[in-house]
Amino acid sequence: MAHRMRAIEDGSITSTPGFRAAGIAAGIKPKGAPDLAFVHAARPCAAAAVFTTNLFQAAPVVYDRGLLQRNPAGLRGVVINSGCANACTGEQGMRDAEATAAAAAQQTGGSAHDYMVMSTGVIGQLLPMDKVRSGVAAAALALEDTVEAGHRAARAIMTTDTVPKEAAVYVETDAGGFTIAGMAKGAGMISPNMATLLVVLTTDARIAPGPAQQALAAAVGVSLNMITIDGDMSTNDTALLLANGMAEMPEITTADAPQYGAFLDGLTQVTVALAKGLVRDGEGATRFVEIRITEAASFSEARQVGMAVANSSLVKTAIYGQDANWGRIVCAVGYAGVPLDPNAVRVWVGDLELVRDAGPYQVDEERAAEILAQSDIPIRIALGRGSAEATVWTSDLSHAYVDINAHYRT
Amino acid sequence: MAHRMRAIEDGSITSTPGFRAAGIAAGIKPKGAPDLAFVHAARPCAAAAVFTTNLFQAAPVVYDRGLLQRNPAGLRGVVINSGCANACTGEQGMRDAEATAAAAAQQTGGSAHDYMVMSTGVIGQLLPMDKVRSGVAAAALALEDTVEAGHRAARAIMTTDTVPKEAAVYVETDAGGFTIAGMAKGAGMISPNMATLLVVLTTDARIAPGPAQQALAAAVGVSLNMITIDGDMSTNDTALLLANGMAEMPEITTADAPQYGAFLDGLTQVTVALAKGLVRDGEGATRFVEIRITEAASFSEARQVGMAVANSSLVKTAIYGQDANWGRIVCAVGYAGVPLDPNAVRVWVGDLELVRDAGPYQVDEERAAEILAQSDIPIRIALGRGSAEATVWTSDLSHAYVDINAHYRT
Repeated sequence: MAHRMRAIEDGSITSTPGFRAAGIAAGIKPKGAPDLAFVHAARPCAAAAVFTTNLFQAAPVVYDRGLLQRNPAGLRGVVINSGCANACTGEQGMRDAEATAAAAAQQTGGSAHDYMVMSTGVIGQLLPMDKVRSGVAAAALALEDTVEAGHRAARAIMTTDTVPKEAAVYVETDAGGFTIAGMAKGAGMISPNMATLLVVLTTDARIAPGPAQQALAAAVGVSLNMITIDGDMSTNDTALLLANGMAEMPEITTADAPQYGAFLDGLTQVTVALAKGLVRDGEGATRFVEIRITEAASFSEARQVGMAVANSSLVKTAIYGQDANWGRIVCAVGYAGVPLDPNAVRVWVGDLELVRDAGPYQVDEERAAEILAQSDIPIRIALGRGSAEATVWTSDLSHAYVDINAHYRT
Repeated sequence: MAHRMRAIEDGSITSTPGFRAAGIAAGIKPKGAPDLAFVHAARPCAAAAVFTTNLFQAAPVVYDRGLLQRNPAGLRGVVINSGCANACTGEQGMRDAEATAAAAAQQTGGSAHDYMVMSTGVIGQLLPMDKVRSGVAAAALALEDTVEAGHRAARAIMTTDTVPKEAAVYVETDAGGFTIAGMAKGAGMISPNMATLLVVLTTDARIAPGPAQQALAAAVGVSLNMITIDGDMSTNDTALLLANGMAEMPEITTADAPQYGAFLDGLTQVTVALAKGLVRDGEGATRFVEIRITEAASFSEARQVGMAVANSSLVKTAIYGQDANWGRIVCAVGYAGVPLDPNAVRVWVGDLELVRDAGPYQVDEERAAEILAQSDIPIRIALGRGSAEATVWTSDLSHAYVDINAHYRT
């Protein structure tokens, strides 16, 4: 079915009708910064979520996984705190996750099983539950459906992030329109497979849990799972989609439904925008690097090569130093684990084809310097093996990254 | 067979009888620093070598691989240049590698097929062959069997290394004694599977190419392949063993020979010493980190977990910042890809057992600060799965690493 999409300028999680949000300072962070967000739906929501694949799963991840199985069509909202990850906290951590959800239910109705929880921050410390409980109460009172309230929620989930990450889109189909909006946090520990990302997506589209989960997995596969800042993967990553079904449209009950494609397109646009925003705000990032791998035999091998290049500390420091050191790119391609023919590989930085036939080709240091002085660096690597492709986004590795991570706790 | 080993103080590649060496400035590096080494054997040598697994193999690697197959028992020496890697240089690079070997033969006898070549430095630039040829001639004239000549060779192969890496051991058996000596370079692009390492090992032991290759592979497997500085793997790595057979002893013709165990012990001691030296001199390193993984189901999974922790930028920056952020260690263990039970994992930093039952255990910030203030940081991680173990060595990630790599070429 034909559809049109329109990005919503200055959108937030509450750009979607039927959602309220709040972001407040609960005192979990030491210096009074906002640290607790609450997103609340006017009606029970179909939910979908993807979680970290780290074997050490934080208490909120374990709690939310269970909830998604038990109650995929009746969720009312989510409480998110920053400043403490509630990870590696054992049984007490599980009790605290549930108590946080119960506090939300006490304030806004329903039971603890109607609310998800997310946490981000230092690993191995217990949540200060007195502060969390009073924070949830304060946030419940502050819930608003204004765009500004959504912005406040996006600020409250930040840790080392320097700017909030938000995106929203309106999708119009012949059978009715709907909104998809999202917010995300994450600046370090960002890597393949959902690494220290917290993402909340809201929509008023009418969609059942099954196709919602399918669309979320597909959208995350080409957005949040295609970024890497430092190759680390966290214990807490969660991307949650809440669909309150309030839009006037036929329900999407399966992935074969006419509106499913439109929904997936809209969700992908929002998650790609959030993913790029995460990379732009990567810890210490001075450059935004888009690595497009073409002529691959499969998407998965394209991604594998892209990630090897994106995770190379030597490539990342060269970009920080504005050094067109294509040898380091070639080097990472060569150890990515894909059985390619070195002579068939070509490498472009911007419009310069630097490498062909396993040697330098259009090496023009002056033009290379111009390209590397820009804030966005496009790199393309053709593997000469097929027609699949993938795009990976990353940032450079700077002095500021080291600063931030050498002294995160202290 | 019983044997005794004695480390040779202040040893060098020429501590082994029957080897001469030189290190000179050939003008390949811009500022007149030593950049060409020559190691020459008094008699034809049995040779063994291991090479990078990167698909982009530098010309000298391709050349040496061929040589090792054709002439494993008649090598006379090796020429090593720093300043230019002769990698991604196509057919001309191959001709230059052979011409370098031919220049050595012209000076000291034999043919081009009797000399190996190694290069390290910037990728994608052709060797300045006039300088290489006159450099080889000057080095041939400077060949000496003094320990100091070996030291000069070790200095001439350095790139961003700040100190030469050398080790030597004398092994005494009831059937005769022999020496094993080595030098290594490598400070960045150091990772599993021989990353930008150049290693030359000399011995006067009588050993055939077969058992020599077997011993070298085994020794490298627990030494040079157990270190990582930045997770990158280069196009040029080579470890070469030259055995001139001049010691009074029965020949080691197979791995079942009585002296094989003594030889392997000696070779392992030298390669472990060189490996640790490489990590201590890692680019920007301020800490030497030993990560011992115990209670694993196999050596290979122990190494896999050790490498995940050692390659984590977040663990490395935390150590640089003297921050006992054990959550980052646990996190890396969790994404290492080994199907472990999180609750069975225990983590020690020094004598503090920080993690047990997936939560904090002996967390003593004061004692942790003392341990992290030391230059050597021992980390132990018990997986609770078996009785295999592995030890990995790495450095921290500092501001200086970024400095060095952002401006390597410029």
